[in-house]
This record gives sequence, C-alpha cells and structure tokens, in this order.
Amino acid sequence: MESQPRKNTAILLMFCPDQQGIVARVTEFLFNNNGNIIYLDQHVDRQDGIFFMRIEWELTNFLIPDNKISDFFGTQIAAKYNMSYSLYFNDQIPRMAIFISKMSHCVYDILSRVQANEWPVSVPMIVSNHTELEHVAKQFNIPFYHFPVTQDNKDEQEKKELDLLKKNKINFVVLARYMQILSDKFIEAYPNKIINIHHSFLPAFPGAKPYHSAYKRGVKIIGATSHYVTSELDAGPIIEQDVTRISHKDSVKKLIRKGQDLEKIVLSTAVLLHLQRRILVYNNRTVVFS
Amino acid sequence: MESQPRKNTAILLMFCPDQQGIVARVTEFLFNNNGNIIYLDQHVDRQDGIFFMRIEWELTNFLIPDNKISDFFGTQIAAKYNMSYSLYFNDQIPRMAIFISKMSHCVYDILSRVQANEWPVSVPMIVSNHTELEHVAKQFNIPFYHFPVTQDNKDEQEKKELDLLKKNKINFVVLARYMQILSDKFIEAYPNKIINIHHSFLPAFPGAKPYHSAYKRGVKIIGATSHYVTSELDAGPIIEQDVTRISHKDSVKKLIRKGQDLEKIVLSTAVLLHLQRRILVYNNRTVVFS
Amino acid sequence: MESQPRKNTAILLMFCPDQQGIVARVTEFLFNNNGNIIYLDQHVDRQDGIFFMRIEWELTNFLIPDNKISDFFGTQIAAKYNMSYSLYFNDQIPRMAIFISKMSHCVYDILSRVQANEWPVSVPMIVSNHTELEHVAKQFNIPFYHFPVTQDNKDEQEKKELDLLKKNKINFVVLARYMQILSDKFIEAYPNKIINIHHSFLPAFPGAKPYHSAYKRGVKIIGATSHYVTSELDAGPIIEQDVTRISHKDSVKKLIRKGQDLEKIVLSTAVLLHLQRRILVYNNRTVVFS
Amino acid sequence: MESQPRKNTAILLMFCPDQQGIVARVTEFLFNNNGNIIYLDQHVDRQDGIFFMRIEWELTNFLIPDNKISDFFGTQIAAKYNMSYSLYFNDQIPRMAIFISKMSHCVYDILSRVQANEWPVSVPMIVSNHTELEHVAKQFNIPFYHFPVTQDNKDEQEKKELDLLKKNKINFVVLARYMQILSDKFIEAYPNKIINIHHSFLPAFPGAKPYHSAYKRGVKIIGATSHYVTSELDAGPIIEQDVTRISHKDSVKKLIRKGQDLEKIVLSTAVLLHLQRRILVYNNRTVVFS
Repeated sequence: MESQPRKNTAILLMFCPDQQGIVARVTEFLFNNNGNIIYLDQHVDRQDGIFFMRIEWELTNFLIPDNKISDFFGTQIAAKYNMSYSLYFNDQIPRMAIFISKMSHCVYDILSRVQANEWPVSVPMIVSNHTELEHVAKQFNIPFYHFPVTQDNKDEQEKKELDLLKKNKINFVVLARYMQILSDKFIEAYPNKIINIHHSFLPAFPGAKPYHSAYKRGVKIIGATSHYVTSELDAGPIIEQDVTRISHKDSVKKLIRKGQDLEKIVLSTAVLLHLQRRILVYNNRTVVFS
Repeated sequence: MESQPRKNTAILLMFCPDQQGIVARVTEFLFNNNGNIIYLDQHVDRQDGIFFMRIEWELTNFLIPDNKISDFFGTQIAAKYNMSYSLYFNDQIPRMAIFISKMSHCVYDILSRVQANEWPVSVPMIVSNHTELEHVAKQFNIPFYHFPVTQDNKDEQEKKELDLLKKNKINFVVLARYMQILSDKFIEAYPNKIINIHHSFLPAFPGAKPYHSAYKRGVKIIGATSHYVTSELDAGPIIEQDVTRISHKDSVKKLIRKGQDLEKIVLSTAVLLHLQRRILVYNNRTVVFS
Repeated sequence: MESQPRKNTAILLMFCPDQQGIVARVTEFLFNNNGNIIYLDQHVDRQDGIFFMRIEWELTNFLIPDNKISDFFGTQIAAKYNMSYSLYFNDQIPRMAIFISKMSHCVYDILSRVQANEWPVSVPMIVSNHTELEHVAKQFNIPFYHFPVTQDNKDEQEKKELDLLKKNKINFVVLARYMQILSDKFIEAYPNKIINIHHSFLPAFPGAKPYHSAYKRGVKIIGATSHYVTSELDAGPIIEQDVTRISHKDSVKKLIRKGQDLEKIVLSTAVLLHLQRRILVYNNRTVVFS
Repeated sequence: MESQPRKNTAILLMFCPDQQGIVARVTEFLFNNNGNIIYLDQHVDRQDGIFFMRIEWELTNFLIPDNKISDFFGTQIAAKYNMSYSLYFNDQIPRMAIFISKMSHCVYDILSRVQANEWPVSVPMIVSNHTELEHVAKQFNIPFYHFPVTQDNKDEQEKKELDLLKKNKINFVVLARYMQILSDKFIEAYPNKIINIHHSFLPAFPGAKPYHSAYKRGVKIIGATSHYVTSELDAGPIIEQDVTRISHKDSVKKLIRKGQDLEKIVLSTAVLLHLQRRILVYNNRTVVFS
C-alpha cells in the first residue's frame, strides 16, 4: 500500500459576507502560486448575503509549503473578506468513532465500506451502551468499549467516553442508531462533528418511535434524516434525507424494515460527505457541495 | 358518444370487524348471482382487526337488478358482519366543484384532464374567493362564482356556497390551492368529500408558508400532500403524497416552483383515486386500493 | 430460541386461466377446513386472461394435516381450474447459496441481514471464482468454496458447483455481483431460483460496463435491476428495480459508487421477496405480491 | 407592468480545453468592469479535459455597453483559451414554437405555465399535423397552423413550417408529443434548439410504443426523457429524465396514464432549463447548471 500514493491535494472550505471579486481573488491566489484547481464550487445565499466556497487544488507544484498555506491564505485573502475558513489535506485520514446500541444495520453498512476501502477513514473504536453488538466490532477487529448509561452515571460515563475519544485522537463521531441522548457538554466537545441518523423525515416525527407515529398518521411516504447533533433534539443541521413510498398494507414492522434500508444509506452518504469535506454549516443549515 | 357504451360495472367498498370467511361469502354472493368479478382487493388491518375490501363486477348478466343490489347485499352479507359499505355504478358520473384562489397550476392541471376526457367526471362549477382566475373558468366554459370571504361574511358566504353546491348536485369538492379555511359546518356537509392539497410533506410544516419553513429548516427534500379535509387543519386522512429533492442552492422561490409541480400531480392523483372509488377512510387513515 | 415458535402458516402460490368463482372456491376450501386466512392477494392479467393468487393461512386449527394439503388442494381445487400451484410452510427455512467475485458490497449487505436475523434463511455456503473475498465468508463463519473458472474448465467447475449445491440441499442461488456467466445447463438446474443483480436500469445497458455506457450516453438517472437468471443474458423476469438521480458532475467512478448503494438494496429486496414466497413468474414477467 | 423592471443581467455560457486560471481570468474580467456576479457555476469534464462555465452578472454599473460585451469578451478572454461561448441578456424573451399531434397533456402543461407568467417566453405559434387540438390553441389565443404530413408532401410541408418559423422569429421548437419524425434538414436548421419528450426512460425503449414494450418486458419502473433532437432517433443529448414505480397490476393503459404525468413535467422542466440558458451540449451530452 506504500507505493503509488494518491496525488496530494488541499481543500479549502470558506464562507464570508458576500461581495464582488472573492472568486477572482481566491482563484488568483492559487493560480499565482502554481496551484492547479481540480474542484471549485461556490454558492451565494442571497437571503442572508453570505458567500460559500469549496476549492480543491493539487499540491504537487504549489509554491507555498503545506504548513504555511493556512497562514498565507489567512493573511492575504481571509482577513480582507472577514472570512471563516478550514484547510484540509486529502492525505490526512480522519479518525471516526462509532456509537451503537442494539441495532446492527447502520454499523454493518459503515464497517463493510471501511473494510472495502471505499472511504478514506480509520475507525479506532466503537462505543456502545449495550453489549448486544460486541460481536460486530469483533468481526471487523475494532476495539469495543461498553459504557452502560443510566440517569445516575451519565455524567461520569460521558466523561470517560470523551477521554477515550481524545486518547484515540478522534476527529468525529457517528451515532449509528445510538439510542441515548448526549448531554450538551458532550455535544459541545464535537461541534458539527457528531453525525446522527434519525429514523424519520425530519421535521416530521422527531423523538421516539417515529415509525409508530408515521403509521398512526397514515403517511404515504416515510423517510430518514442524517444531521449534525446540536443541543436541541433532532433539530440540528440536516446533511442528507431520503424517503420511500409505503401503503396502507404496511404494518409498523414493515415500516421499520423498509426504513432501516433508508437509514443506513442516508447515514453512510452523510458520513462520506463529511469525510470528503463537502459540508459547510451556517445558521443551522448545511451547504453540501456536490 | 352514444355508441359503444362502457361495459357497466358495480363497485362495492366495505369494511367490518375482521373474521373468517368474509371473502368467501362476498365472492360467493356475486358468483351465485352471475356477477363476473373483474377486481378484488382486500386488506386486513391486523392492529385494529378491521377487514377492508373493494370489489368490482360486471352487471351484464347479473341476476339482481341495480336498484336492489344494495338491499340484497345489505341483508344477505353486510348485516351478518356488522359491515359498512358503499355501492357505486361506474356509469354514474360524479359531479365535482373546484374551489380556487389566485394560483392556477392545480386548476389548469385538473381542467386539462377533464377536457381531454381522462377522467369520468363533470365540473358544473368553479368557486373562488378572488377574481384573478375567472379567465381560467372562461377558457374551459365552466360557470365561475365569486364569493369574497371576510371574517364578517364568512358564515353567510359559506351558506350561499353550500346552497349552490346543493343546487348543482355536487358530489365532492376539490380545493385546488383554495387559500381560505372552511368552517366545521361546511366540512360536515361533505364528510370525506372535500379533497385538499397542502404544499408540504405533512405532518411536516402544516399551516401557512410551508416552503418558507422548509427553507429555514434546511430540509433536503420537499413534498406535497393531498388529504380529505377535517375540522383539524391539515390533519385529515392522507390520500397521496410525493416529494422532490432540493439543495442549498434552491431559494424559497425555487422551492415554490418545484413544489407546484408536485402539488398539481399529487392533487390530480388523489382526485382520480376518489373518482375511481378506490379510497376507504377509517380512523383518520386511508386504505387506497391500487 | 426454542420457546415461542412463530405461529405456523402455509402459503399457496397459484395461477391458472381466469374464470369466475376461483377466489370463492379457494377461500371456501380453506374456510371449510378451519383455515384462518391472514393474507390474500390476487391479480388478473386481463391481457393474457390469467388468474394469480397468493394466500396464507394459519395451520393451528386447520383440519387437513400438513402432508395432505397439497394432495387435497390439487384434487379438490387445482384440477378443476387447470391450475399450477406451489405450497410452502413458513417454518421451512430456505437454504441459500451466495456466489461472489471481487466486490463485497452486496454480500456484506446480505450477510449482515442474515446475522441480524432479519431474514428466514440459512446460508450454508459461499462460492467464488476468486479468492479476494474469502475473508468476508470467514467473518461470518460461512464455508467458502473457490472455483476459478476459465473457458476450458467451465463445464467441470460448474458440475462441481452443482454437486456441492445439491449436497448442501440448496434451494436457491444469489449472484451477488458474481462476474461470470452461468451456462444454460447450470441455469436449468435452478429455474427461477437464481437471483442476479445487474448494475443498470434494464433493459438499458445490458452486458458489461453499464456505468461506462450510462456515462457515455449522458443519462440523468441510473439504476439497478434484480432478476431471475434465464439463458438470455440480463433478460430474465425482473423482480425489483430502483434508480437514483445523477448529474453531469458525476464521473464514472461516482456512478459506480452511487450505483453500488442501489445494487445492494435492490438485490436484498429481491431476495426477501423470494424468501417470503411473494413472486410468481409467468411469461418472463413477475407478479410480486405486496 | 412598466414600473419596476427586472434587474438586467447578462449570461455567458462557455466551454474550452481545460487549463489553469480560466475562472480567475473570467471573474477578473467582469470584476474589473464593475460587473456584480450573481451566479457562477463551472464544471470540468476530467475525462475529456473540457472546462464549462455559466456566469451571470448585473449590467447596472457594467462598464462595457451591451453591444460590445461579446466582442470584448471574445478578444480579451475567449481567444486566449480557444473558447466557445454564447452571450444572452435576461431581458431578451425567447420565442418558442410548439409542435403537437393529438395528445394534449404536454401542450396544456406548457400553455398553463405561459399563461401564469411562470416562464420568460412568448409563444407566437402552434403547429400540428392534425386538427384535434386546434381548440387548445384557441383557448390560449395562439395562432394554430395545420400541416398534415404524408410521405409524399413531407419535404414541402417542412419547408413551409421552416418559413413560418423564420417569419415568426422563432428561437426554439418544442415537440410536445409531436408524433412525426423531422427530417435531418429541419433538425439542422435548429441545432440543439428542438426539444423533444420521449415516453420512455431512454436508452430503454426508443421508437414507437414504449409503454407496450415496457409492459411486455415487465419492468418495475417507467420513465420519460426530454432531449435535444438530433438526426439519430431518440439519441440526442438528454436534458432531463424522471421515473415512476409501477407494478404487475398496471395495464398498458395505466402505464400510459402514469407516464403522461411524467412526460409533461419532464418536458416542462427541460424547456425551463433551456429558457434559463442553463444547458451546454458537448459530445452529445448535456451540462445542466443547477
């Protein structure tokens, strides 16, 4: 695996108040430093007057050394436009922790992709508040940590989890049908870095038992929603959604089964978008560069 | 148009507490009376223990005269099973009133189908609380009635509308983006016979300005919902829904435009299902026979 | 797992030339023998004049012993209507063989469902013409058999495979992206019992490299198709299809990745329908009871 | 309608061999001339090495007069990059001719949008090879021209049609289920300016009677495709496609009805994209800017 490294690229995600000339200045900055742009997509939110851009360029002949790019860009461009930005290198492999409970469909979907090298990611740890899925972690040789959570021990258990995440240099967390609400404290440690899958078409049916509610309401379509976790339950920025048609013939049990197919694909799609640094969050909404 | 009449059929929609033998008894009843069944679909709601069936048969050699079928079926079958049922003849053309306000996409979609003889329906009247769309009624030679509604005159205007509906022997009403809430009194006059289109994926975003709410929430999919009107706003039995994918690039204006394409198709699909007597309502949910 | 066995049911799949009274006779047959019908769906193909039905009933108080049902039904019903029928018992767990090559997404999807007890199935063997995925079989403790196939040894290898399938009492075969065309002889041994996934929206792009063809043609939607294998390549009865929207931005590589998500869900959906005995094949088309 | 004119903008569509710095040069060109960019989207086809861009900017303070923009851009930018480009002004309202035969669903959909001012377009003429839909043209007060076409008169009729199109200064033609194949000569007069709707999911089922073929093949999903007309039948660059799920229960007649809903929305979507100058054609594929 050492030979033939992927061509190195850098990715900049940025947003700022919209004004004339930003695209020209940013592309000129890269062009003048011998950066060959291989991706550029920008979006202007005209309602809020905000400019968003994702740009990726090859580093091979780039004149600025990797460890100076952020400084140079910050000084020469970002400062002028009151711009927020993040710089990534495509050879930095993100480290992901997976949190699970008792249902395996999402974690299997994720791990089978990781195993097949579909994704540029490493998974140093799986956390669960139950033990039912320990065998899944074992099948894929991933360390499994069991943190049973009760109302009484939640604070200390989360503290241990956070320590473990830190120790493992985890960049982001995926809640793969983890059926335990995280505290604000935990969430604040990973802002826009905890990805959840909710088993409904949000904002319809937030909270518990959405398939039962969907059945009761008699909807003709059900859905699944992946979003970043914020302190308000099931109200964070939506990354991806998908739906499927149902009919009066479908029992709650069948809704659950059909919905699970949505859940795992929607969650994995969201995780991949995150891994590819395609997502910007602004005002509790996502810009997802295609 | 006199020659080659459509083959006459009768349709029975029925529901009752589930028990063994109902299908056998009903099909036997028709079979013994020389009724050739051309459609049969049944559904058992196992949660509530309710049996539903739609059955259609040819009347050509049927031994029971049309005007006795309901009685015979009631006595010989329905009474035994504590069954609710409705009998329809496919040569009875339903009479539909359309209520509109200022947006024309739904009413154009409906009238272009009526004009093309896609649907077995007649449209003796169009009602509006505005005058903007009078020209549409004129284009299709349909009487247009203007009933401006204010808080003060709502009762009397609705009374006039109901009188007009009665006078025109209207069987059911379609609210084709009619932007005026009907009173309970009006609704009770046409139970499960007023079809509305709501411009969201219910139960998400009920009430006013759903596209604005969808934009603000940052959903990745928008929808439209057709339902029977009940006294609770946007909470009646859902007949049909559809959705379309959107992105962060879509402004509210674009959501509205994309959504209008959904609205008209979803509403027309629901109207056709109603015309074909494919819908049974139970417990605020619909059984839609395919 | 011994306690609380699932309630025993029997399933009949049948088809015959359409005529009056079949539903009545069949339901009467079950009713008179104390069979509580829990599922009935029928379909009449009016173009070909063929009647299809799937019916399921509880065996608890059924008066006919399990091993006599087929005889009794054959004599008392099927013979009268020139009917083809198959009888299944829901406590007979089908035995499935999986054939794979080098791509793991479909086989992982299947095995993760099997492991989670989503499906009533056992998987005694996995066959591959390559060794790349042997680790997947190992992860799930399923015997893995390697049969490399060349033009020269194809006949003898298929013979060995067939022997092995027979020895393992395999009921049906799933080709989970198995990239080797089966001979007519092999196919004839499992008529309508070999389920394939093709990575296009058939009949568009049959044969090799459909994603490349889709890219070249500039389609805006790609798909996947699961079908029973027949001697004509990619032309067997279609069980299930699904599609996803693409754009000019998507490279062939991205089409492949998006398509793989379709492939695995479409294949697994088809396998479940087969396991639930919901599929009848007639005239190279499927009737799929919902 | 005189007051509050829409803000004037110009749109450039361009493509050329990809190389570094194009975006920087183009945006700089506009920026330096006081053009406020309100839309920019670019795409690089890495397989063919082609750069595509759509850019829109406000003309209010733009330093170059409208009638010089094309020259200046050509000299200062396009020439350097071997670039093909088209310049449009959003206050130039395109003139569209509609060709129809006997089915009204597409033309009604188009005209109801035109009437509602959904689209920036004028429709000076409707052409038909039949008279069945003359009443539709009359309903919307649009001149209707009847050109019956036989094998013998096709050349001369097309010549008359082309003369009429020219006389009416028609910019593009929409074939709204026009069931008559156009000659190469006709097509060459409007390259990438004749939009057709084909009633299948191309490349599946090209040519006549696609719904019958779809029924016979037993597909589970049907579709519709809008494309620019080229000399090869149903093989031109695809603009838009959509699909809907069907089942074994659906007769050919029902496929046709369901398909018509797809056809009209897909065609109208394609027409709007064309009107908004969002489409570039290269190598028989479209780049559709969102």
